[in-house]
Amino acid sequence: MNDATGLGTRKLAQIAFVVRDIDEASRRWAGLLGVPVPEVQVTDPGREARASYRGAPTDAQAKLAFFDLGGVQLELIEPVGEDSAWAEGLSRRGESVHHLAFWVDDMKRSAAFLEGRGLPLIHRGDMGEGQYAYFDGEEQLGTMVELLERERTELDGS
Amino acid sequence: MNDATGLGTRKLAQIAFVVRDIDEASRRWAGLLGVPVPEVQVTDPGREARASYRGAPTDAQAKLAFFDLGGVQLELIEPVGEDSAWAEGLSRRGESVHHLAFWVDDMKRSAAFLEGRGLPLIHRGDMGEGQYAYFDGEEQLGTMVELLERERTELDGS
Repeated sequence: MNDATGLGTRKLAQIAFVVRDIDEASRRWAGLLGVPVPEVQVTDPGREARASYRGAPTDAQAKLAFFDLGGVQLELIEPVGEDSAWAEGLSRRGESVHHLAFWVDDMKRSAAFLEGRGLPLIHRGDMGEGQYAYFDGEEQLGTMVELLERERTELDGS
Repeated sequence: MNDATGLGTRKLAQIAFVVRDIDEASRRWAGLLGVPVPEVQVTDPGREARASYRGAPTDAQAKLAFFDLGGVQLELIEPVGEDSAWAEGLSRRGESVHHLAFWVDDMKRSAAFLEGRGLPLIHRGDMGEGQYAYFDGEEQLGTMVELLERERTELDGS
């Protein structure tokens, strides 16, 4: 999957929406899909995740809820605080699709690939032994792209 | 899968973007994913597909391109003509995610379910022996929803 000419994977992991009220949005999707309302999770504060947003440390958080769409996760995100890709997305487009997420094996390589194609890294943070990173693909693709990595490689300039 | 309390399926079939230039968008996604640029397809004229949009017949078409994201299709849509859910989406949000699509076994039931939840049917058409239908979920979900059916059930009021 470490195709040197691409993102590093072709398998979609998540499609994520930003929402204003995660409880309300979770109820709507649960009703639509005919499943129980999932538990809402809250991300660690940004400083605990060594998070950065547009070049500066950020302490922003998010409330998250997940649904299984048959091998792809539907993620709902309510931003908590400012200075995050989540708050930026909600501010830019209102409640809507925020990003498509992909697991990669070599985030550093995949990040360089995306940045080389005009999708700048705008927000990253640690996630257990791994990390997440958002790339602004609004102009190129009409959405943000998130890369997820299970074992962290160090990123520059994030 | 014919859960009487839900949409009728929980499996995401497609995530679709509307774009202004399908050739350019296809090249971008092909480069991103490291795959060949797919062939562009053109839908039948709306009148041949018995298509209707917001209560009136429409002759609108679309250019389509598809990528495999590991069990989920990525669909790119360039509207051709006006009076379609595709043109409406592009006009409303610019190049962005247009809809999430699901295959259902009983479109008539699933359509009634969505309409009962405040997602009106705005555009439908025949597709071989089956049909497609778009529901405006902008207010409820932040996106349109498309239902796809292999053997056509008759819909009212479309």
